[in-house]
Amino acid sequence: MKLVHDPIHGHIELDDFAVRLVDTPEFQRLRRITQLGLAFLAYPSARHTRFEHSLGTFHLARKIAGYNPEVDEGAVYAALLHDLGHYPFSHTLEGIYGRHEENTKWFIRHGEIGDVVRERYSIEEFLKLLKHPLVSGDIDADRMDYLVRDAYYTGVAYGLVDLDRLVRNLAWDGERLVIGEKGVMAAQSLLLARSMMYPTVYQHHVSKIASVMLVEAVKLEGIPFKEIRTMDEVDLVARLRRSERAEVRELIEAIDSRRLYKRVLYTDKDPGEKAVDELKRELEAEFGHLVLVDYPPKPKFEEKNAFVLVGGELKRLSEVSPLVRSLVELKDTHWRWGVYARADVVERVEKFIGLFVP
Amino acid sequence: MKLVHDPIHGHIELDDFAVRLVDTPEFQRLRRITQLGLAFLAYPSARHTRFEHSLGTFHLARKIAGYNPEVDEGAVYAALLHDLGHYPFSHTLEGIYGRHEENTKWFIRHGEIGDVVRERYSIEEFLKLLKHPLVSGDIDADRMDYLVRDAYYTGVAYGLVDLDRLVRNLAWDGERLVIGEKGVMAAQSLLLARSMMYPTVYQHHVSKIASVMLVEAVKLEGIPFKEIRTMDEVDLVARLRRSERAEVRELIEAIDSRRLYKRVLYTDKDPGEKAVDELKRELEAEFGHLVLVDYPPKPKFEEKNAFVLVGGELKRLSEVSPLVRSLVELKDTHWRWGVYARADVVERVEKFIGLFVP
Amino acid sequence: MKLVHDPIHGHIELDDFAVRLVDTPEFQRLRRITQLGLAFLAYPSARHTRFEHSLGTFHLARKIAGYNPEVDEGAVYAALLHDLGHYPFSHTLEGIYGRHEENTKWFIRHGEIGDVVRERYSIEEFLKLLKHPLVSGDIDADRMDYLVRDAYYTGVAYGLVDLDRLVRNLAWDGERLVIGEKGVMAAQSLLLARSMMYPTVYQHHVSKIASVMLVEAVKLEGIPFKEIRTMDEVDLVARLRRSERAEVRELIEAIDSRRLYKRVLYTDKDPGEKAVDELKRELEAEFGHLVLVDYPPKPKFEEKNAFVLVGGELKRLSEVSPLVRSLVELKDTHWRWGVYARADVVERVEKFIGLFVP
Amino acid sequence: MKLVHDPIHGHIELDDFAVRLVDTPEFQRLRRITQLGLAFLAYPSARHTRFEHSLGTFHLARKIAGYNPEVDEGAVYAALLHDLGHYPFSHTLEGIYGRHEENTKWFIRHGEIGDVVRERYSIEEFLKLLKHPLVSGDIDADRMDYLVRDAYYTGVAYGLVDLDRLVRNLAWDGERLVIGEKGVMAAQSLLLARSMMYPTVYQHHVSKIASVMLVEAVKLEGIPFKEIRTMDEVDLVARLRRSERAEVRELIEAIDSRRLYKRVLYTDKDPGEKAVDELKRELEAEFGHLVLVDYPPKPKFEEKNAFVLVGGELKRLSEVSPLVRSLVELKDTHWRWGVYARADVVERVEKFIGLFVP
Repeated sequence: MKLVHDPIHGHIELDDFAVRLVDTPEFQRLRRITQLGLAFLAYPSARHTRFEHSLGTFHLARKIAGYNPEVDEGAVYAALLHDLGHYPFSHTLEGIYGRHEENTKWFIRHGEIGDVVRERYSIEEFLKLLKHPLVSGDIDADRMDYLVRDAYYTGVAYGLVDLDRLVRNLAWDGERLVIGEKGVMAAQSLLLARSMMYPTVYQHHVSKIASVMLVEAVKLEGIPFKEIRTMDEVDLVARLRRSERAEVRELIEAIDSRRLYKRVLYTDKDPGEKAVDELKRELEAEFGHLVLVDYPPKPKFEEKNAFVLVGGELKRLSEVSPLVRSLVELKDTHWRWGVYARADVVERVEKFIGLFVP
Repeated sequence: MKLVHDPIHGHIELDDFAVRLVDTPEFQRLRRITQLGLAFLAYPSARHTRFEHSLGTFHLARKIAGYNPEVDEGAVYAALLHDLGHYPFSHTLEGIYGRHEENTKWFIRHGEIGDVVRERYSIEEFLKLLKHPLVSGDIDADRMDYLVRDAYYTGVAYGLVDLDRLVRNLAWDGERLVIGEKGVMAAQSLLLARSMMYPTVYQHHVSKIASVMLVEAVKLEGIPFKEIRTMDEVDLVARLRRSERAEVRELIEAIDSRRLYKRVLYTDKDPGEKAVDELKRELEAEFGHLVLVDYPPKPKFEEKNAFVLVGGELKRLSEVSPLVRSLVELKDTHWRWGVYARADVVERVEKFIGLFVP
Repeated sequence: MKLVHDPIHGHIELDDFAVRLVDTPEFQRLRRITQLGLAFLAYPSARHTRFEHSLGTFHLARKIAGYNPEVDEGAVYAALLHDLGHYPFSHTLEGIYGRHEENTKWFIRHGEIGDVVRERYSIEEFLKLLKHPLVSGDIDADRMDYLVRDAYYTGVAYGLVDLDRLVRNLAWDGERLVIGEKGVMAAQSLLLARSMMYPTVYQHHVSKIASVMLVEAVKLEGIPFKEIRTMDEVDLVARLRRSERAEVRELIEAIDSRRLYKRVLYTDKDPGEKAVDELKRELEAEFGHLVLVDYPPKPKFEEKNAFVLVGGELKRLSEVSPLVRSLVELKDTHWRWGVYARADVVERVEKFIGLFVP
Repeated sequence: MKLVHDPIHGHIELDDFAVRLVDTPEFQRLRRITQLGLAFLAYPSARHTRFEHSLGTFHLARKIAGYNPEVDEGAVYAALLHDLGHYPFSHTLEGIYGRHEENTKWFIRHGEIGDVVRERYSIEEFLKLLKHPLVSGDIDADRMDYLVRDAYYTGVAYGLVDLDRLVRNLAWDGERLVIGEKGVMAAQSLLLARSMMYPTVYQHHVSKIASVMLVEAVKLEGIPFKEIRTMDEVDLVARLRRSERAEVRELIEAIDSRRLYKRVLYTDKDPGEKAVDELKRELEAEFGHLVLVDYPPKPKFEEKNAFVLVGGELKRLSEVSPLVRSLVELKDTHWRWGVYARADVVERVEKFIGLFVP
């Protein structure tokens, strides 16, 4: 057994099997994958990584399972490995390479870490556990850890959640984690915290602009999937710095020096995907990598999988809590799309855009 | 200048005039008025008093005024004195004696503290400042202090608010404190915190039952207004313990020993005031002080006085924030009325009530 | 099982037996015994009571015993009751009535709480457990709780101790709790925290002066031991306010209004007990209750009972830690005795004292 | 003016000049220099960088200067830039390349940041301010920030210091920052915190072993000073990964995967530099990079530059505080030197060493 110091949970206990999973190159790679991608350009102290978050998720999963002995123990280790497949800068590059979940599976199937898993579990059975409600629901160990951790590291005041109360009030009914009546407030505060972290941190415009710039650099560099999938941030940044293409070097240098593109357009008015695509093409033809368009998918706050047991009856959390219900309404509130340009072409772009967008 | 240690704000600076206001018997009396009344029977550590809260409110008011030099300086001292008139156990006895605000004015008019006020202000001008938005709005120094403080002392996780960000983003427009765009999230989180503290702490059923028992004891003792208005908690409790009426002594002893009445009825179905009044009379006739009815007013979360400046336009916070809007809906969610009885008569009361309430 | 919210430990679990001990008038009385006596006159927020501290001590004792199953379970309940006998304002009146430990025993022998104890333990066996190292050593659950708690409530920054690390590294060797090598730093920081809390909080001069005044009032009132032993703070303060002796009423009113005596003499030069006693008599003859002398015993930081297991060898913590060793040296550093007088006689007293003290 | 969120200080205000200093490639490079080097291998969450620490130091320097208007304003900006010259992984490589201070000067003389400095200051005058007591004393803004910050990020409980009290009680006497009487406890607790962070975090053996391995890799790679001085951690790690020497690639891979060398010898017995050097040579001849010797300089806790004003007299803090005095004694307590070897050669090395070391 090993104890790891953690500012969020105090001490995290790792049993021998967990230690052996952690002591693999695949898991250690997570130390070099920033939890919040480029958010540190807006919140300088947000330098925490998927490594600590994975340990924290494991810790909470272990505690929830401690109150629910019928939960499959494998799900607790799945919680530890759930983020193994993240690309450099976490979600930033998923638009290019697809979601990280498949890559997590690939690592477990083909990496040294898979050999450790195999000692106890069949790989295919284990992979199914990555979807276990313990780590993949609306109220799960993953979300509990990252909200509190992200708030701690950014210094933002929205992530205080009574984790202990929540953990004590989650009951496994064979299929899902059901929130007990005494946990409703804590669960609600978790979802509220998430809804406030969303615009404040996760969608901070500085982080968005830097991300679009990075995405462009990676696209221009043309890094194939089979290379990116095992890279860490050192690999990626070094590769971009050494690129043969001047535009790529210029983009990564601008990110490194925080000389970010400026907003030319930033709006919640949605002209539709087709119109935006066309604008994108026009801008690219005219300005190349000097102008970037960010047209993100709409955020989802469906929260449809949080169930509560009130007076013996199973209900959706949103039925019981008007605040959670209003989160659905909130869904689109913070959505924006934008056009960003290098400082010296902003004016030209403004004119150019004037012709296209009403 | 004097520095006071405070766990919420670090150090509170008191200028000489503030020191002289604090150094009066009327202000020192607040050390013996518990901030949350009998809530310590549910949250043992909630022993903080109106004294610390008043200093904290002053501190925040001073900071807000620091960013808004046009705010009348008297309002900052009014913030210090705004809770002067509280009766023992804060809001608990307001149902009998009326709201504390009038008593605050009475103290300032007639107490030693009024002599200090008079050195700088006309009393009547000063009394008007007790309604100043700095201390009497939806987003004000009073509320900012008590939410964070109550959360700190109860240990409940719902009161974390980014006070610094909020304070920096309140602008005085000559009439009210307007929230700047960068303060919207912090303001919203303040109101959400309040809405979660409400059922969890402020309306905790243990605290409610103990309060109804205290109210009954005070009524039976028949303490006149001119006596209660200057009492502190020592005076009141000692008086009830020494009462000539056995029922009064029994009630205060039960509170002291936390042998509280049990819930016979606790429901959100509202039969209307008339029906409840009749039941009350019937129960009193049959059981006397052994059965108590608590039929509280519906809580208000109108939040209609919080204004935001968004893109140069003044809007209500509730227009801008769907979450705040949903707080209005929430209004009735946590309302309950109840019938409570001494443990040994519960069964009899249940039968008795069966005849009256459908 | 019952959960109590606590800002220091999160949730405190009370098993059924603990609940029944807590639900007695003797234990509930602790809610009205301030943990730090009159320290709230210096640190307004220090309003916590022996009640919360007793629950916290129980919680830590339970955790330590959890890692050491050979510890007598009775000692964990003894931890809960160890402070039962405190007089109003905790240690303040021990100079008159003797240490509270005897009174704790008396309550357990004669109170309703004793009946609960008897269901599981022989009273005399149980009373011995009040001296168990779990609650009565240099590194024990009592001290761990009060240091962290007192720091939290005063807002002073010296009480942060890694309780979790300490608790995990205490091993019962059949006779004492021995600190493991990995707990040395945490144990050292506990003793350092104590040494810094001592002058800053526990011996704060404001608290000292108020205490001497209260002691004088109680002496003048002549409250017999058999009365004080069951009083809470309401009883005591109410009694002093109603005293037939004007001096007593004057003293309690001065404490209530924080109109404290002023320092005439405050020195670390010790003329010896005899000389001080003589001065005391002279001053009393001349000034009565208007001048008070405080000649406290020297503080002890012997720390001789903290043992560490280093490399398989049992050593005193002070052997291993030069910092702890230097705490012994510190012993007298903060000791002071003083003469305090009502503001209006200060000058006269200064002259008078000039004749006696060189 | 710009506000930066910071978990330690809340919001850090940057004036326009500070913003322009921060917005240079040289300052932004600090985002990629970990504050605690390889300590994250022991404390996974210690991922904070010199960037945040520099902002925090500036913030505290600004506050101290706010209470002391005679302090040269340039010293506040010097505080911002004091760590500019750190090499990758902070102090780790100073044994090879010398202390970072000279490199800080070089950046200011030759970098884009120097151009900003020159707008207000003569470079040579400004460079002298890097030694200003505000940022280079025993009690200075640098140390205040890093202790509290390092504790926050590691989650270790020894770094709580009452910064506000300390800041308020530092008085500039024209030559140094003198601690006022009311700041003595806070200053003492800062030095104590440092002495506890030292063995627990700064000299953690895991961090030491990884550091020796990195030093060896850098030596083998033979990176010239003029290259390392401008590198960030991406540059360095990428360079080592791409090395033509297999030993270098092996070492960095071992660090990346946390497959660290094992302790063969770890002792506080000092055979003297000469003997150790000889051993080093013998080991190198026999085992090459597979065995590494770490023989660090003895730590210094002289604390001779902390002055206190007590009763109008200037004294050394160590005269006033026996605890601080005992820190000098502590000096050697935690010193150790060690021999570390790759797991597979440990046994052979143990035999080999047996011949040399008694």
